[in-house]
Amino acid sequence: MTLFEPADVVSVPEHAVRVRATVAYDGTDYSGFAVQSGRRTIGGALTDALSRVLGHPVELTCAGRTDAGVHAWGQVISFDADETRLDLELLHRSINKQLRPQIAIRSIECVPDEFDARFSARLRQYRYTILNSGAPSPFSARTAWWIDAPLDLRAMRLACDPLIGEHDFASFCRRPNDDASLTRRVLDARWEAPGDDVLEFWIEANAFCHQMVRSIVGTLVEVGLGKKRAGDLTGILRAADRSAAGQLAPAHGLCLWAVRY
Amino acid sequence: MTLFEPADVVSVPEHAVRVRATVAYDGTDYSGFAVQSGRRTIGGALTDALSRVLGHPVELTCAGRTDAGVHAWGQVISFDADETRLDLELLHRSINKQLRPQIAIRSIECVPDEFDARFSARLRQYRYTILNSGAPSPFSARTAWWIDAPLDLRAMRLACDPLIGEHDFASFCRRPNDDASLTRRVLDARWEAPGDDVLEFWIEANAFCHQMVRSIVGTLVEVGLGKKRAGDLTGILRAADRSAAGQLAPAHGLCLWAVRY
Repeated sequence: MTLFEPADVVSVPEHAVRVRATVAYDGTDYSGFAVQSGRRTIGGALTDALSRVLGHPVELTCAGRTDAGVHAWGQVISFDADETRLDLELLHRSINKQLRPQIAIRSIECVPDEFDARFSARLRQYRYTILNSGAPSPFSARTAWWIDAPLDLRAMRLACDPLIGEHDFASFCRRPNDDASLTRRVLDARWEAPGDDVLEFWIEANAFCHQMVRSIVGTLVEVGLGKKRAGDLTGILRAADRSAAGQLAPAHGLCLWAVRY
Repeated sequence: MTLFEPADVVSVPEHAVRVRATVAYDGTDYSGFAVQSGRRTIGGALTDALSRVLGHPVELTCAGRTDAGVHAWGQVISFDADETRLDLELLHRSINKQLRPQIAIRSIECVPDEFDARFSARLRQYRYTILNSGAPSPFSARTAWWIDAPLDLRAMRLACDPLIGEHDFASFCRRPNDDASLTRRVLDARWEAPGDDVLEFWIEANAFCHQMVRSIVGTLVEVGLGKKRAGDLTGILRAADRSAAGQLAPAHGLCLWAVRY
């Protein structure tokens, strides 16, 4: 061991097999997915539980590092496990028992070594939920942004169109420290009204920059409130300037719905 | 004042008007509806908030005193308020701001003095939710009973039929201290499968005895698991004996859905 070896280096199991799992979580009480020392994180809770059950250190990769308070229905993780003592069904039940009720593995399987939850992902889909009613609801308080003023759904739908396609999303992203590209390809962006005063914004892209969905939703809601016009979206995108777009929508309405490989 | 006057006697406002409100709540963190000193209750939280905003003591009546952990979407309450300083819209907003996110008034109105949330109620409707899937869901952990073993929905539906009509529900109730009648009239009892592994039991009756819905659901689930047969329900009802029925279903799947007047 050298003096420069990091303390948290992970030893790879000798007979390693790559495992993929789909994970749902209520992010309300967590400081996001990414492991941070001294904070309660989704990634930290999963790493601890998996290491405990497997009996060896585990290093997780995830499809999308969700922020504090953001939820997931279809987050995907991958990690290596020691094949000689792996019982997937037992692992599944044991992790779900330990992490109930906030975190649940929905499915788990062995995959080829080339699979990586982050780099193999082709498309990510997010859902953002709004409760648009005169009174708040105790049952969606953790998962929907409550807006009591009436929203113009038609205008919000029109405003989605310019988002489709490949664009520089600098107006909708927290600027990164490096000069990494903020160009992303959006395949789908639409509002659904499944009933009972609920509005859902669905967006699918090859990848998302930091806080991209929340700033898009914040901007679309300003259109719905009449503070911006649907036609403004094209100019906001072209400005490539964060101050051109609207406020960030709150984290708790956002959910990483699915990842496609 | 006499020595025998109870300490918590409520003074009636001089210019009283009767108010009716429909209330939703997530009962997870509460010891039920009924006010109990030293406990956090739905009724206690509402009484405190209403008294504070109205500036005079308030005595609440409710349509159904839900147990610890039980939720409501359409609980109805009534109380008297001082008409001279009553602003319903301000009261509505103020109470919802104080009691967010667990408790919310959905609607509020003035009603004739004869209205009483409990005694004027003709029908109560409850919903019981089950998540029947291999993995638990973080998003229904507070509101659905998770059962991972497969349930025979057809048998559970057949088992509902004998419940309809007027019966002595002694087999499905905690025996009261007095010899009050346990006869109730059930108008509707059915299972819905709204999709995504969710089963909902809907039951409507003129009134319910204590723990009646939960013991009916517990019994129907035993039918669904093959531990009892659908045909057993008639005999269980006739036995008029609590030990004839199944276990109590957990409180958190139950929700007082609506009350009809």
